[in-house]
Parts: sequence; C-alpha cells; structure tokens
Amino acid sequence: MRLVFCRLLASAFLSLAGISAFSQEKAAEKYIDAQELTLIGQPRHIGGYHRVDTVRYSDLSPRIKELYSYSTGMAIVFKTNSRRITAQWKTAPVGQGANMNSIAQKGLDLYIRRQGVWVWAGFGKPSGNDHLDILAENMDDSDKECLLYLPLFSELLELKIGVDHQAYVKAADNPFSQQIIVWGSSITNGIAAGRSGMSYPSLMARSSGLHFVNLGISGQSKLQPELARMLADMEADAFVFDAFSNPNPAEIESRFQNFVAIIREKHPHTPLIFLQTIVREGGNFDLKREAFEKDKREAAAKMVGKVRAMGDLNVFFVNPESILGNDHTGTIDGTHPSDLGFFRMAEKWLPEILRIFSNKSIL
Amino acid sequence: MRLVFCRLLASAFLSLAGISAFSQEKAAEKYIDAQELTLIGQPRHIGGYHRVDTVRYSDLSPRIKELYSYSTGMAIVFKTNSRRITAQWKTAPVGQGANMNSIAQKGLDLYIRRQGVWVWAGFGKPSGNDHLDILAENMDDSDKECLLYLPLFSELLELKIGVDHQAYVKAADNPFSQQIIVWGSSITNGIAAGRSGMSYPSLMARSSGLHFVNLGISGQSKLQPELARMLADMEADAFVFDAFSNPNPAEIESRFQNFVAIIREKHPHTPLIFLQTIVREGGNFDLKREAFEKDKREAAAKMVGKVRAMGDLNVFFVNPESILGNDHTGTIDGTHPSDLGFFRMAEKWLPEILRIFSNKSIL
Repeated sequence: MRLVFCRLLASAFLSLAGISAFSQEKAAEKYIDAQELTLIGQPRHIGGYHRVDTVRYSDLSPRIKELYSYSTGMAIVFKTNSRRITAQWKTAPVGQGANMNSIAQKGLDLYIRRQGVWVWAGFGKPSGNDHLDILAENMDDSDKECLLYLPLFSELLELKIGVDHQAYVKAADNPFSQQIIVWGSSITNGIAAGRSGMSYPSLMARSSGLHFVNLGISGQSKLQPELARMLADMEADAFVFDAFSNPNPAEIESRFQNFVAIIREKHPHTPLIFLQTIVREGGNFDLKREAFEKDKREAAAKMVGKVRAMGDLNVFFVNPESILGNDHTGTIDGTHPSDLGFFRMAEKWLPEILRIFSNKSIL
Repeated sequence: MRLVFCRLLASAFLSLAGISAFSQEKAAEKYIDAQELTLIGQPRHIGGYHRVDTVRYSDLSPRIKELYSYSTGMAIVFKTNSRRITAQWKTAPVGQGANMNSIAQKGLDLYIRRQGVWVWAGFGKPSGNDHLDILAENMDDSDKECLLYLPLFSELLELKIGVDHQAYVKAADNPFSQQIIVWGSSITNGIAAGRSGMSYPSLMARSSGLHFVNLGISGQSKLQPELARMLADMEADAFVFDAFSNPNPAEIESRFQNFVAIIREKHPHTPLIFLQTIVREGGNFDLKREAFEKDKREAAAKMVGKVRAMGDLNVFFVNPESILGNDHTGTIDGTHPSDLGFFRMAEKWLPEILRIFSNKSIL
C-alpha cells in the first residue's frame, strides 16, 4: 500500500515537473555531457557547439554570426558498448523554412561504423526546443564507434548522451583526416537536406574519410572581404568554395580577385577549389532568371580563369556537366538540393576534389 | 490629386480586407477555378479534391477517410499561353510530421511539357492554410501544357489558377493513359517526399506515361477486407500493392488470401502486383526490429507464393535486391524514403511493373 502511494506521489511529482510517462520510458540510465566526448566539424576547437567563434571576427554581420552559431555539419564521435543510445538535447527557438523538415533542422543523425563503413543507426526526433529520444535500442553489447551529427540549422545549446547503466561511453578519435574547409551558400549549408548528415560535405566526408568542415551560410556568401579574412585565419589543407551561388554577376566580377588575394596572404599554396554554382531549375522557363543565372556562371568561369591566367595554378574550377542530373528531381524548390541532389553533387564533385587534393604536394 | 486619393482609398480597402502589398504583387490578373480544368489521380471522378468518395465506403475507419480526403498524387492539367502562372489555394489545418516539409505537404508542384518531357517549372510555397504564390513568371507566351500536383498530405479545399489578362487557360486531356491503382502505406503516400510530385507513383507516371493513381494511406494499409472491397469496386488495368509495410507477420498470414479473394471476385484476371516491403534501416542495429522485419518479409513472400501455387498466375511478387541502395542515404528516418529513396525505388520497380503490365493481355 505504501509502495503504491509512493509511486502515485512520484508519478504526480514527475507529472508536475512536466516529465511524462513517455519521457520516463525514453530516459537513459546514465548520461554523459557531449562536451566530454569528441566534437568534430569546427575549423578551430572552441567550447560549445558554434561552428565559429564570431567574437574573433567582429565585423561579420549579425545574420552571419547567427548562422555560424548553428551546428551545421558538426558531429560527436564516441565509443560505447551500450545496447541503447539515448539523447537529451536543447536547441534555441528558430523558424522553420518551407523547404526544411524538423528532423534535419533540429534533430540528430546517428551512424555506427561496421567493417569500415558508416552504417545509419538511428535518428533523434525533435519536439519543440527541448528534446529527448532513443536513437537506437535493442542492439548487441559489442564495442561501437558512433558518429552523431548535430542539428543542421539550429543553435544547439546542450546535448547529453544516455547509455545503459553498466555500459561505458568514451571519446573516440576523429575518424576523418586532414581539414578541408567548405565555404558557401544555403546549398553548402544543406538547408533542404533530409537529415543533418546528408549535406554534400558530410556525404563526401563519410565516403572519402576526409574531414570536410561545413562553413555554409544560407544566403550570405557573397565573396565579402571580411569572410575572406575569417577563412584566411583558419588552418586548412584545402578550401572548397561554393562561392558563386549568392552573389550577383557584378559582385562576382568586382569582389573575386580581392577575395582570393586576402586568403592567399596567409595560404600561399593551399588549393583553393571553386565549384561552379548549380544550374537553378527556377530558370527552366523563367527567361529573366535563366539569363541572370547564365551571367552568374559566366562571370564565375571568367574570374577563376583570370586568376589562373595570372599564374596561380593552385586555384581550381570544378564544373562537371549536369551536376543535379537532367530529370528535374534533384531539388525541393528549384534551388535547394534534396538528398537526391546532394547525392548526385557529391558523386560528381568528390572525384574531382580528391584528384586535386591528392596532387597538391606536387603542385 | 483625385487619383492619388483613389489609390490611397484602394490601398486602405485592400489593407482592411487583409490583402497585403505582397499579396497584391503576387495576385494574378484573372483566375479560373481549378474545378473547371482537368483533375487527374482520382480512381473515379468525383467533385472536389478527395481521392475517394468515402461516403460510398462507409465502413472505412475515420482515419482512413481523413487520409483519402488528402489530395495525394492528384494533379490539375491545363493549357495556357500565360507568361505568369499564379495560384490561390486553401488547405484544411493539419499537423506537420517531423519528417515532412511544408512545400510537399501543403504546396503545389508545377511541370510543363517540353519536347515530350515533363520539365519542372515551379512550386507554390504554402503559408498557413490560405496560400497565394507565383508558380512561374517571365515565361514566353507560347502554348504550354501544364501538370500541377496538388498538396501531398493535406485536404485541399479550394484552388484557383491565375493567368495574365490577355492569356487563355483551358482544360487539357489527361496525359497519362490506362489506370494503375497503387495502394499502400505511408511509403506510397509519400509522406517524406521533397515535393508533392516526387512520390514513387508520380515519378513512375511521368517516366512511363501511365496513369498511376495513388491510394497510399499512411500507417493504415493492413490488408483489411473493407479496403479490399473498396479496391474491388474500382476500375483498374492493374493494381500495385505496397501491402506488407503496415501489417505484422501474423496479419499478413491471416488476411492475405481473403484480401486477394475479395478483389478477384470483381477483377478475375487483372494483374495484382505485390511489392515486397522495403528493408527498414531502423533494423540495421536493432536486433528486435531486424527480426520483426525479416518475419514480415518472409510472410509476404510465403503468402504471395501460396496464392500463385494455387493457380493464380496473375498475382505477381516484385522483389528487386537493395531497393533503397546499400549506402544508407535513401530515407529520412529509417523508414520513409527521401526523394533519393523514391528515385531508386522507381528505377527498380518500374521496369518490372511495365514488363508485367505489357504482358497482361497474353496471360
């Protein structure tokens, strides 16, 4: 009788505390703060889950600072033998674009390495801003190397990983080598990806083993000198730029050389790999838009060619045909790639990037 | 002066009527109710935008009736020479799943046929439940054959197509021939598709020219006899079934033969094409889930084999290897295909379905 009363009391307390029976079921037996594990995807290690310490780059616009507070492309790597992996996480309130799903925007995306391959293992379903979910359960108790992508388009405030009472959980080494910084627009930011690990830099990292660091900033990558200064200040074995998606043709013509020059001051020989911007499906029938996009692509090709003609052969232009395919299935809204678009982009871009990157020592 | 006053008055009136300057910009010069154009994707023509007249099938559950009120897979076909195509539409309030984006769920998806191919032309971006958007603009004034997919996972209450003042707009013939009814789960319903025209039945229709009619009902396709009676009552040149995604192994074993028998009473020789359910990525490490899914797939193969062994060779089992690929990129949440998953499914399923369908007259 006393036990029943205690249970009722406990239940009433939990209920008052806003913890539902459902949450109790999902709760793990023990938690570790993800800050104690290995965080990858930051160009320079800083505490917390921002991509960039924007205090260091005070001349960036407020919107760019906000975008760099999002955990895009970042992941936690750890080892555990737990049969169940749970997560408790908090994200800052953020609007949801019509082309986004909340699993990608605010959720988590888990992979476990099996025979050298990253195998998808589960996801964390968001609810509001304060989230709790089981990522994977009913597993065997073998040692598992885990790669957990953080929210794609939100600021992550807190993350705890939950495991079984008797299981261990510990930091793992960064499984990706070198550091290739990818800078660009919403396309790089991956805003219409299906899961947070599906943007093209993450796809390229998992299939190549290289550490692609995602510095995409939706709508804000316009070859600004302050962003060139920020990039110049970072360590990189190569830079990949989706630099021609956001600026207009005149901005490309007037800003490109200075953008390259600023980076070159600090990185005299590092490969600077410029991706041609994708052909926007929005210009399939819109004659104005088609002309604008054509001008943009021409300005891009011209300016990269100019810098190379001036003797900098470590500046590259990557421009494969039909990057999204020709069947009109690669985007959500004519501009932003779906997972199908990202898959096709990675499939065409990665071999060219790898060819450049593997030759860099002899350049 | 009088003109300025009139403009101010007009502006004040529009503002009072809740029509913003933004809306005014997007508004078309003349509108036609989409009910005056050609509606495709209904198994039997009924007024409005429900897929099925559920008054006729009163024993369906309330949830199934609700799902059949959604305009999944349906489209408007029309011809116009307008340079700009606008839409005004209303959807009933509906919750948004974590794996959905609102462009697919409540938006519109426009294609225009160019040299025999459906080329993507634009989308209608939803906002709340009462929507207004420009689908495509700045086009030339040639004659255009348009295919406009309706919202994927909402009830569409009203739709008006807006065109230029001097342009014509008129109904076009259904560009798809025959009628192949596709019945199934959320996978067929396409709930995690990136746009409303990206579920696998729509992909298969555009690439084959056949009229695939989407009767997917998320979570509700469990081989129920009342649904077999509904399907039996419909005209079809073939049926395609994603019938093994929702029921458990015991339900498959106990219900399958009766389900087929009910349809066979009205359709003695029509091809009944059963798709094996996809391998759920959620079972990659979850041993319990892996076993459950394996049992389901075995029950499916066994029951279709049983019906064929009893002599009905117009019942088919389509089961290509690795329907979603082997690289863990095909779903949003381990169960629901992304556009990448749908593309791969259509690529593998369609040739097998076409082979069966083209041979049906000699069976």
